[in-house]
Amino acid sequence: MIEKLIDKIKKTNAPIVVGLDPMLDYIPDFIKERAFEELGETLEGAAEAVWQYNKAIVDAVYELIPAVKPQIAMYEQFGVEGLKAYQKTVDYCREKDLVVIGDVKRGDIGSTSAAYATAHLGKVTVGSKKYPVFNEDFATVNPYLGTDGIKPFIDVCKEEKKGLFILVKTSNPSSGEFQDRLIDGRPLYEHVAQKVVQWGEAHMGRNYSYIGAVVGATYPEMGKVLRKVMPKSFILVPGYGAQGGKGADLVHYFNEDGLGAIINSSRGIIAAYKQEKYAAFGEEAFADASRQAVLDMIEDISQALQAERG
Amino acid sequence: MIEKLIDKIKKTNAPIVVGLDPMLDYIPDFIKERAFEELGETLEGAAEAVWQYNKAIVDAVYELIPAVKPQIAMYEQFGVEGLKAYQKTVDYCREKDLVVIGDVKRGDIGSTSAAYATAHLGKVTVGSKKYPVFNEDFATVNPYLGTDGIKPFIDVCKEEKKGLFILVKTSNPSSGEFQDRLIDGRPLYEHVAQKVVQWGEAHMGRNYSYIGAVVGATYPEMGKVLRKVMPKSFILVPGYGAQGGKGADLVHYFNEDGLGAIINSSRGIIAAYKQEKYAAFGEEAFADASRQAVLDMIEDISQALQAERG
Repeated sequence: MIEKLIDKIKKTNAPIVVGLDPMLDYIPDFIKERAFEELGETLEGAAEAVWQYNKAIVDAVYELIPAVKPQIAMYEQFGVEGLKAYQKTVDYCREKDLVVIGDVKRGDIGSTSAAYATAHLGKVTVGSKKYPVFNEDFATVNPYLGTDGIKPFIDVCKEEKKGLFILVKTSNPSSGEFQDRLIDGRPLYEHVAQKVVQWGEAHMGRNYSYIGAVVGATYPEMGKVLRKVMPKSFILVPGYGAQGGKGADLVHYFNEDGLGAIINSSRGIIAAYKQEKYAAFGEEAFADASRQAVLDMIEDISQALQAERG
Repeated sequence: MIEKLIDKIKKTNAPIVVGLDPMLDYIPDFIKERAFEELGETLEGAAEAVWQYNKAIVDAVYELIPAVKPQIAMYEQFGVEGLKAYQKTVDYCREKDLVVIGDVKRGDIGSTSAAYATAHLGKVTVGSKKYPVFNEDFATVNPYLGTDGIKPFIDVCKEEKKGLFILVKTSNPSSGEFQDRLIDGRPLYEHVAQKVVQWGEAHMGRNYSYIGAVVGATYPEMGKVLRKVMPKSFILVPGYGAQGGKGADLVHYFNEDGLGAIINSSRGIIAAYKQEKYAAFGEEAFADASRQAVLDMIEDISQALQAERG
């Protein structure tokens, strides 16, 4: 799956991922009204609005990008109905040949991590049958519990040729509270990064490992260091756009080969029509606004990379 | 909700919580066969078996205990159908007046943590309506992302009078990899514990905070220290029984008032009929075996506490 991700990045020339994090506030009124008319102001109605919104955006951008990253929390807040919309979104994106990174940030001890790994990347056994479950291609995982919480995920990844992005340095303002604390002279996130390297050696692709890392766009200096600590790990970079990260800040998340990083934007793409810059599209053409925002993001990052490499 | 938990612990004289972590392997064949006959060897069939198993155990033990802790991963591995069984289990336990601790170990940045908090502890807004979602009473939360990942959970807890258990020192063998590393001379888990104290001050009950901590039964020396670091936080203690913890090891997780800790057992209770000790019950009477295991666990902990207090 890391090879597929790399192939698609090369083909689209777009090291980006669109975050499908649909808040109801982002969804145009006409979509919500239609869903509520049909199903009422219910969890089912909300889930239908989410799904219609996602589908329109995916249809508008899928040819431009290698991957999407649905944030499961935004679906889970609508309970079982929301998770049906999550499932539909994952399935639809896979049909469109997109790499799907499930932003689930799961993590637990041994057998429980194994259950999460099965849920998101593996197949569950029921009697004599086996079923894929949510069936994303990659999942994000929290490292706080250490190796025996991560290993069950890696085992499933090896079986299914899937991958992980492990939280190393997150994009939020408080991420430093624990992640930046010094241990033997180096911040905790560097120790986690070293483990990512070690875990990654167990599941290598051609040039990159199936086990990557999450490093926020909001900390470019740390990104630069972490790029060197984890030379063979892909870095998933949240925080571009709405959270403040810019293309020029992100060049050091990439390796010399132009690979090694994939930049996520969520709100900046899916709610583009709400920005002044794209307001001319209007609410009805929200998906076209998203498409333009994707094109602009690709251009921003590509220019920054060219400027850097000269 | 912390007051309800304390009242129920006093009434039952049982500072314990039963972990509802149903692996298919634990479920007696006759339950699985019945479910598969009706619904096939499908995700739906598996979910039905899980639900029937849980219901029988809850019916057998609910009068003896204050709380249950369903582990959502064990349901999530069966996808949307599994999560329906999770929802049914939570609802049923609440009907039986049990305190429900959702072992979900979620945690993310601001708005995403807010969505998880809504999903598990709050109410989601759809148009002019508001709905509770999974609606547990407490949730477990991962602290790796720091205060702005935790605060949205606390905000929802304050509104709904619900609570959290924050991962401080987990019960697994690798938990020390990051959690035990020294920062300014003290292990990371103590720094997290200090934050739990600080976060807890924002949402106090009468004598205890609504914001508790998770500290594994497998590390009694650390439990002793952490009890003192967090005098007003309830400690949820996994790892009793199957993972190796014993009542005598756990006395220092409690305060002088006999409160402040709640000991979890999962497999040791729900799959008791598989142990030699309870084999005489037979598979048909698995729920009676679980009831006996609960009585034995209460006795073990109560004797240990009495021995300690003299």
